[in-house]
Amino acid sequence: MARSKAYIASVGLTGIGDLWDKSLLDLAVEAARGAMKGSPRKKPDQIFVGNMFSALGASQEHLGAMTASALGMAGTPAVKVEAACSSGGSAFNVAYNLVRAGALDSALVIGVEKMRDLEPEEVSQALAMAESAEYTQFVGATFAALNGLLARYYMEELNVTRDELSAIPVIDHANAVTAAHAQFRKAITPEVVGRSQMIADPLRLFDCAPVGDGAAAALLVNDDAASGSKRKLAEVLGGKISTNEFSLYEREDMLDFKATRLAFKDALSMAGLSPGKMNFLEVHDAFSVVGALSLEAMGYSKRGNGSRDAKAGKYARGGELPINTFGGLKARGHPVGATGVYQIAEAYLQLTDQAGKNQIEGAEYAATQNVGGVDSTSAVHIFGRAA
Amino acid sequence: MARSKAYIASVGLTGIGDLWDKSLLDLAVEAARGAMKGSPRKKPDQIFVGNMFSALGASQEHLGAMTASALGMAGTPAVKVEAACSSGGSAFNVAYNLVRAGALDSALVIGVEKMRDLEPEEVSQALAMAESAEYTQFVGATFAALNGLLARYYMEELNVTRDELSAIPVIDHANAVTAAHAQFRKAITPEVVGRSQMIADPLRLFDCAPVGDGAAAALLVNDDAASGSKRKLAEVLGGKISTNEFSLYEREDMLDFKATRLAFKDALSMAGLSPGKMNFLEVHDAFSVVGALSLEAMGYSKRGNGSRDAKAGKYARGGELPINTFGGLKARGHPVGATGVYQIAEAYLQLTDQAGKNQIEGAEYAATQNVGGVDSTSAVHIFGRAA
Repeated sequence: MARSKAYIASVGLTGIGDLWDKSLLDLAVEAARGAMKGSPRKKPDQIFVGNMFSALGASQEHLGAMTASALGMAGTPAVKVEAACSSGGSAFNVAYNLVRAGALDSALVIGVEKMRDLEPEEVSQALAMAESAEYTQFVGATFAALNGLLARYYMEELNVTRDELSAIPVIDHANAVTAAHAQFRKAITPEVVGRSQMIADPLRLFDCAPVGDGAAAALLVNDDAASGSKRKLAEVLGGKISTNEFSLYEREDMLDFKATRLAFKDALSMAGLSPGKMNFLEVHDAFSVVGALSLEAMGYSKRGNGSRDAKAGKYARGGELPINTFGGLKARGHPVGATGVYQIAEAYLQLTDQAGKNQIEGAEYAATQNVGGVDSTSAVHIFGRAA
Repeated sequence: MARSKAYIASVGLTGIGDLWDKSLLDLAVEAARGAMKGSPRKKPDQIFVGNMFSALGASQEHLGAMTASALGMAGTPAVKVEAACSSGGSAFNVAYNLVRAGALDSALVIGVEKMRDLEPEEVSQALAMAESAEYTQFVGATFAALNGLLARYYMEELNVTRDELSAIPVIDHANAVTAAHAQFRKAITPEVVGRSQMIADPLRLFDCAPVGDGAAAALLVNDDAASGSKRKLAEVLGGKISTNEFSLYEREDMLDFKATRLAFKDALSMAGLSPGKMNFLEVHDAFSVVGALSLEAMGYSKRGNGSRDAKAGKYARGGELPINTFGGLKARGHPVGATGVYQIAEAYLQLTDQAGKNQIEGAEYAATQNVGGVDSTSAVHIFGRAA
């Protein structure tokens, strides 16, 4: 089967935070307009909206048609794609495969989430829908609780210390200081993480991604749709969604993020690249432990060494393999259904030298990893500079 | 771009109704297992779940990974696709375009909705998410109310009578009598429709599709994945999603179902067929007026004549162009996110001579039309007998 090359032609981002004055639709439209700006074609062939819980966050579904219409693109095919916290990456993956296979010349992918209109306990309830209602939620296990259990197991089983666990949040916050769209632009120390409020033992406040509103968009194009564009291109070299046994308790080895492992392997294989080629990563550190297990699943750290390697500087700016170059989920923020598209937009900004003070000089290749549930779904993409 | 042929290799259906003893996941798994039965490949390349409001109906999101895992298919890529009441047809469309373009050899499409665990007013609230929360829902316009306003306008503007409006529900109920999976297997008369309880003036109870639980699944395959299958194939010849100005009040002509009109035109063009080639239609009669306007948008009835032609027998079993051969939304039932896949499964059963007492003898071609909101989205597919 002949393949088209697929590129990101442009991106649009809103800042992340308590955006009380902007509706869900406002956010989606703002990001989308940013991504369409300068496009030689006024409309994409199809719109994909990544979102997890607009039903609870904004009493709204049907975001595809709603966004298309608000953009003055009524007529254009439009759908929402949902895969919990990996909704953004999954929406991008569906769109990418359609462009790559030649079914679409262009696709506009929008990730959006409105979280701050909910009370904190409602946010917990919304996030818990990423896991089984009947076997997890209804017995009182919030999403933070599940990740707390996982973190305890990880620390006990593999002798990971509190200080090590704090290393990824510290890197994230350091990187966010100069990131205009980040929710928390303030550096922190391991001590700050270690003495912050306990959320779900052993996870503390600064182990956990914050709650915020935001939207990101990316315009995917093939060679035909790219021609005439004056905007810089980054190439999408591979991308895959994979899944794991849904709930933690169903898995033989809870510390093996199988969905991430398989998705990364397949995405690299599509790209024809080895893991060592990556110059930076955007990893899904919804909780510090999730960031560590993700780096282990991708093979960059040995089992039990994800946080340890972070503490040793491997993943810091200027280290061997920088991660979360604009702050990751912890500091850039984690507007759930939008997060995967933020990661992808950040990879685009880096690979087109538009990352400003956050620029990783000379980066040629990058991977983004967006997880739904506790690695129940993982959507991984590989990007490179356009030839 | 080279295209693969795409077929439906098999389908699975649950009965529709008050399925108190089955969870959302039970329903999805039952339909999926039905569709996978006899497949020479144990797993599809990807799973697509069409669903609108599992967040409200079952406190559950992340149905893709959840269903994959429950089917013993952890690892398989899986996402949910949502486009309000057209979620099922839209999920199928995304999967179909990926198979047709050669990105996937096979895809399992599952439509599922659990409505009956909600109180009636909660169902109204869930359905209202198909329309703008801020401009429609929050001022108290339920989905039935909007369709009531549309029906009144339709009747006044185009001189449509109460008896004419009753004709499509009557056809639906007649067809459902022998349909094993239908929710209401009982024939009705125009008088029954006309004297049933008023829901949203002028729409009465029997103008409105019922509330029910159900799931349907279809296995899409290309030639490679079809080889070795002993199950009968129907070919997918074309399929398109289109959108309209989102809310009724934004449209120049509320009686023009533009999304359906455009999607049908494009789907026919992909199939290389004229409208006259269709031997039956599955149309989205969520309300009697929606069925009538759909037939007008597809060009089978002149403006204002959709219900009138139905009354004259054109769309009845044995008429010129039978519709809703297993009862349509009104009598087969309308488990929202599943409906589009039920329609497609029914087209498959007809075109492979497995429709039993509902068989349309010698049918060669069919179209299915699945609407989200009041034609804010429309997903139309064209099917034919496999050569």
